[in-house]
Amino acid sequence: VLGFLSVTLFFLLSFGREAEVSASQEAYEDVQWTSDSNSHPPWLRFHLNISRWQLYLHRDPNMEPLTQQLATHRIVSAVQKSGGTQLKLVMSFPNYGQAMLKPMKQERDEETNYNLYYFSDFERHNAEIAAFHLDRILGYRRVPPVAGRLVDVVKEIKDITTDRKLARTFFTSPVGNVCFYGQCSYYCSTEHAVCGRPRHLEASLAVMLPDLSLASRRTWRSPWRRSYSRSKLAKWETEPDYCSTVKKTPPYDKGTRLVDFMDMVILDFLMGNMDRHHYETFEKFGNNTFLLHLDNGRAFGRHSKDEPSILAPLEQCCRIRRSTWLRLRLLSLPQYRLSDVMRASLFSDPLHRVAPLLSEPHLAALN
Amino acid sequence: VLGFLSVTLFFLLSFGREAEVSASQEAYEDVQWTSDSNSHPPWLRFHLNISRWQLYLHRDPNMEPLTQQLATHRIVSAVQKSGGTQLKLVMSFPNYGQAMLKPMKQERDEETNYNLYYFSDFERHNAEIAAFHLDRILGYRRVPPVAGRLVDVVKEIKDITTDRKLARTFFTSPVGNVCFYGQCSYYCSTEHAVCGRPRHLEASLAVMLPDLSLASRRTWRSPWRRSYSRSKLAKWETEPDYCSTVKKTPPYDKGTRLVDFMDMVILDFLMGNMDRHHYETFEKFGNNTFLLHLDNGRAFGRHSKDEPSILAPLEQCCRIRRSTWLRLRLLSLPQYRLSDVMRASLFSDPLHRVAPLLSEPHLAALN
Repeated sequence: VLGFLSVTLFFLLSFGREAEVSASQEAYEDVQWTSDSNSHPPWLRFHLNISRWQLYLHRDPNMEPLTQQLATHRIVSAVQKSGGTQLKLVMSFPNYGQAMLKPMKQERDEETNYNLYYFSDFERHNAEIAAFHLDRILGYRRVPPVAGRLVDVVKEIKDITTDRKLARTFFTSPVGNVCFYGQCSYYCSTEHAVCGRPRHLEASLAVMLPDLSLASRRTWRSPWRRSYSRSKLAKWETEPDYCSTVKKTPPYDKGTRLVDFMDMVILDFLMGNMDRHHYETFEKFGNNTFLLHLDNGRAFGRHSKDEPSILAPLEQCCRIRRSTWLRLRLLSLPQYRLSDVMRASLFSDPLHRVAPLLSEPHLAALN
Repeated sequence: VLGFLSVTLFFLLSFGREAEVSASQEAYEDVQWTSDSNSHPPWLRFHLNISRWQLYLHRDPNMEPLTQQLATHRIVSAVQKSGGTQLKLVMSFPNYGQAMLKPMKQERDEETNYNLYYFSDFERHNAEIAAFHLDRILGYRRVPPVAGRLVDVVKEIKDITTDRKLARTFFTSPVGNVCFYGQCSYYCSTEHAVCGRPRHLEASLAVMLPDLSLASRRTWRSPWRRSYSRSKLAKWETEPDYCSTVKKTPPYDKGTRLVDFMDMVILDFLMGNMDRHHYETFEKFGNNTFLLHLDNGRAFGRHSKDEPSILAPLEQCCRIRRSTWLRLRLLSLPQYRLSDVMRASLFSDPLHRVAPLLSEPHLAALN
């Protein structure tokens, strides 16, 4: 019943309403909550309010209950997310909400080994959390909400999972911690096990987007995709005039796609994410819609070195959305310094009580 | 020609002479070098002087030229050693000498992740070097000589190797270091590449023992072998009276085998090596011979915690060789503190100039 309700409401309320309301983002933000939607669980309200312009509202009253759910609701199911290269779990809540879990694999003060290529880096749970906050601070609202959580790997994963391939990989480490490694193509082995202390594991929980059957998505290959090879260079690395070709190629030739892309580039530069090979949009909204900033686990791997090549698209096209430019200028003022705004924002995450989500060198690097 | 010479000399001089000389180790040490052997390369002299009692002499005049060769002689060939679980190379010198290379994989101040089982631990080049020194300090002389060396991975491996499987795995890291990973069952992948700085790599070079066709060896499964399983326990872990069975079982029921084994246990405890699943002896010497202490790369992984289970054989059998007992007492006197003796001994290794081979916490842990 909920499934059907969700389909109907999704189309009627979210997409329907979005079409009725003006095309202006500002106007859309003023839409008041109807009393109906108060009875929906936070995850459904989130789904229903995804618009052509953003995933959630500025000052969205649903954010607090939604992150509360991610951080505290009882977990009734945990299975591996298939298809990924690294270990991720899909967790379910009693109200049918779902979240994607990424486990802590690296200490906060560790930097990515400088001999590793970007495509061999670990995914970091705190990068997923920090990316959500940074994206929101930049005014994008294109990262699905993420909350940190201290998960009991026995009670909340091992004891309840129906995924036998996952269950088989649990073991107790020599010092008595409960560990598991799952099945995936990278880092799923005893040597790279994820361990509780003794059974509590830090993790990020990102709310799932509407199922693809309800809201199909289109995947776009980034024109500035890296080569994912140790020896080959990508076209954009050797052709100085690469952007002039891209600018003539749909969908970058009209509308806001190019500046939307630059927005993503700026986010990725600030958090040192070199792994943005693809991005997605909601099919239903066609080409005039925001870009989803999904999968940020490889961000915040190194604070001691900037990676200017991430800014290549900005440099080569010399285009930036005016509001983003103004926002960046605002965030460079002493009273709104990005590191301070981020520190304050991350303070609201439940895992903050365990340890600050970004170490001070990472915060400082944002400036 | 050299091969044949080596066979002849090996039997005539080393084993033949060994039989003529008295059975006393002390007497054997007094045997003077014949002028003949001065014309042999150091590695051959080493082979020729392996005895029933030890690999080399106390104050062996060949040690200096031998370690010099390992540390400085030109390398003319480098191929992977097959069969191992982790990456090792066999290096050849112009005088037909050979050495086993293990590359640096871990910083000195890193401790083995406490959630890793002993069978998943890295091999450490500095553990191979330190084990040689410790074994010598304990008066055993059962570890083949090892020297540290800063190897040029391009000139001394990549450019000269005939091993195409090895050559294929070379690449330049994002920061311009030359890296490779080889082919093996563990840690041979991009994510675990071994990297020069930018092409200089710390490594241990252990002199090779005589070829198995010249001096075949017997492999013995350790009675106190660990289970090599995350869940199973070994017999010795559950049967308090385990030693009484072992003591009745050949070859532990007569001669010095049991105290020889305890010698090895003491070495392993001091250096925290849990990975002694097998040991070897020279076939030719039968059961009355020393135990080879080969393959010590998993020692010195952790300084912050002793591993008392390594001493289980000693505890369960309550037997120790008198000379070892006296040596340990000597090394506990303030003027011969083991950490000081080891620090001084390791000072002679060429890699000492790059960085002390054992960090101070590791040296302190020896006491």
